[in-house]
Amino acid sequence: MQPPPLRSFDDLSVGQEFGFGRIAMPLEEILDFARAYDPQPFHIDPARAAAGPFGGIIASGLHTQSKLFGHIIRTGWVEHVSLGGTEQVVRWNAPVRPGDEIGVTARVEELIPSRSKPDRGVAKIRYLGTRVADEVVVIDILGTHFFRR
Amino acid sequence: MQPPPLRSFDDLSVGQEFGFGRIAMPLEEILDFARAYDPQPFHIDPARAAAGPFGGIIASGLHTQSKLFGHIIRTGWVEHVSLGGTEQVVRWNAPVRPGDEIGVTARVEELIPSRSKPDRGVAKIRYLGTRVADEVVVIDILGTHFFRR
Repeated sequence: MQPPPLRSFDDLSVGQEFGFGRIAMPLEEILDFARAYDPQPFHIDPARAAAGPFGGIIASGLHTQSKLFGHIIRTGWVEHVSLGGTEQVVRWNAPVRPGDEIGVTARVEELIPSRSKPDRGVAKIRYLGTRVADEVVVIDILGTHFFRR
Repeated sequence: MQPPPLRSFDDLSVGQEFGFGRIAMPLEEILDFARAYDPQPFHIDPARAAAGPFGGIIASGLHTQSKLFGHIIRTGWVEHVSLGGTEQVVRWNAPVRPGDEIGVTARVEELIPSRSKPDRGVAKIRYLGTRVADEVVVIDILGTHFFRR
């Protein structure tokens, strides 16, 4: 279930899990992102991609990461609490191909109230992107955020 | 010194350092990226950003990460060897603001020949983005790549 906007860091508890629907990865968007930010043949050139290591176009991992994160932002979940992020550990477990639909979930992993700044805390949240067609986890992001209290 | 294209995973040795010139972060590009992939007020709305936690627009960390990585790709350094990446650990140490110029360097941290696939190895490379104006490291990316041998 898609959660309502957080009102405070203190709304969260470790182990909570949330669902955020799904994102789509259309071919044109894959090509556009990669032309700008990751112009490798297997992301931008269908002919070379077909002959390359993945047997066809795959999305830039940076694109999947950005798309998933942008989707979370658009839900409004963190709009009242977000004070920016300091770290992401991103794992691309399987290639993402044009037309893939990816379900997005989040799990609260760790919550650390700030000692120096009582108005905020550090939330570590794991975001998973799971391909709808075969339930393969294609991306795993452990994000570290500052959230207002 | 900007390095020539790698011919093989075996061209690398741990501790090697390379420079890749610099990237620029113009305001319009910061806004465009964030509208698509990270639409938080401090990335897309100058008025709300001015009143917000950073006192003005800052670049999405995903943008700085993607821009730095795209710059590395465009130099051609890995075009003959890249078989994709599996992980990035990204730390955003300081905000990036419109107009910032960021120097890009890389250091080879670890090299692991694949046991199962003799045609490739895993290279862990740390990329640093250092703001030219004040020499602050604004982004630190430890990337894990598969490179051909």
